[in-house]
Amino acid sequence: MNTPAMSSPKGRLFLVPAPLDFMCDTQAPLPQVMPEGSLLIAAQLSHWVCENAKSTRALLKRIAVVHPLACVLQDQRIVELPLQVHKKGDHAAGLDTSGLLAPALQGHDMGLVSEAGMPAVADPGSSLVRAAHDAGVEVIPLVGPCSLLLALAASGLNGQQFAFQGYLPQDAAQRAQRIQSLEKHALKTGETQIFIETPYRNQALLTALLGSLQDNTRLCLAADVSLAKMKIHSLKVADWKKKGQVPDKHSPVVFAFGP
Amino acid sequence: MNTPAMSSPKGRLFLVPAPLDFMCDTQAPLPQVMPEGSLLIAAQLSHWVCENAKSTRALLKRIAVVHPLACVLQDQRIVELPLQVHKKGDHAAGLDTSGLLAPALQGHDMGLVSEAGMPAVADPGSSLVRAAHDAGVEVIPLVGPCSLLLALAASGLNGQQFAFQGYLPQDAAQRAQRIQSLEKHALKTGETQIFIETPYRNQALLTALLGSLQDNTRLCLAADVSLAKMKIHSLKVADWKKKGQVPDKHSPVVFAFGP
Repeated sequence: MNTPAMSSPKGRLFLVPAPLDFMCDTQAPLPQVMPEGSLLIAAQLSHWVCENAKSTRALLKRIAVVHPLACVLQDQRIVELPLQVHKKGDHAAGLDTSGLLAPALQGHDMGLVSEAGMPAVADPGSSLVRAAHDAGVEVIPLVGPCSLLLALAASGLNGQQFAFQGYLPQDAAQRAQRIQSLEKHALKTGETQIFIETPYRNQALLTALLGSLQDNTRLCLAADVSLAKMKIHSLKVADWKKKGQVPDKHSPVVFAFGP
Repeated sequence: MNTPAMSSPKGRLFLVPAPLDFMCDTQAPLPQVMPEGSLLIAAQLSHWVCENAKSTRALLKRIAVVHPLACVLQDQRIVELPLQVHKKGDHAAGLDTSGLLAPALQGHDMGLVSEAGMPAVADPGSSLVRAAHDAGVEVIPLVGPCSLLLALAASGLNGQQFAFQGYLPQDAAQRAQRIQSLEKHALKTGETQIFIETPYRNQALLTALLGSLQDNTRLCLAADVSLAKMKIHSLKVADWKKKGQVPDKHSPVVFAFGP
């Protein structure tokens, strides 16, 4: 995987992680959170499938600071995943994204990238990865930041059994019911429950969690993971009620709870 | 998080990922899979809690090639997590590991490290992380490789909802029952099921999966993730039966399936 030379006539699909600071005013140099190995490979690619073309160009500009790109920004082929994939999720949308693999079938290595973190994890892209396997295109994930994983490790919750639930329902009654059902499952099995929320609803979700969870359940809020302003708090619900801090409405937060 | 200067009288607990090649004869340089930011911080630490002291010393020797260590290997304080934590899992063991945090309470930054990958994820250590939160010791996860996450991203399975199940039962009847119950849940909810096995049982687990799963279910085997010899195959069960490759009995494999 380390050499850019092609061993088969087909190109490969590299999963290129992106730093988690794409919304921030100040950004640390990429080597802070991206291995040299990942940056070198990303710099050699010039065919991209992405969540958002603008943020992909911004990422390429940051990579160019560290390593010269294979070609200038204007010549990079950057194609966005179809909108349906974003809205419904890759497999629920039932879309065929195999057409996006044309460059790989013509022998070009390609990169899949999302706005932040690992593509195809809590982000669109898995339909393209699936199409790559089906087309015999080798899939190579590169190491980089992933907020879910960093949050789980830092939560003090069970990391030997866990589930990522995506977003909880927005309707208050449905959300409370879902929280209680997940908590029941977590207390029975020991499985850590992980989920995310749109930042401006962080506060509402925390209120809902404190209103629904049992006092003895441990709740972790991991905000701005991997950034300089990162804050990770893991407390029992009873202690959150006493001294918990309200998450910022602009910060991406990973929520997790369990026994 | 970037500066080694202490902002409080307490030290911090850094979660230091390790490369996934600790069992390999040939090892790539650490910058291949570890960000400069993580390596710089790890090099500055001299108090460690770990899964295995020998592999921690081996990791420190590899870090020393890239950055000078805070002190020579002989002076590094390396303490292993208690054996019960390994055997039963951190929270099932019900152990109090807070005593291991003594250096942090005295003002020393500490590192938690496992043999491979992210500590406290599919590996021991979460009881120490929990104790750190309870003692007011700041917990800072560093970016690095994690086989579960890389395998999930590269599987083409649903990355917006997934569960890590740890190990499946060894008893054949119980294992078949568990596989079928997980598949039923996966097909109903769309949740990807992820699990691991001891390498010498890879072949037996694959046989059990092919014997229990439905032909239309997609099964991914991700072997030697992040290494040069990495092999990731994602096929429907019917295709595994026709052309699937038997995993090597020495390779760590992440298994995943879903609709």
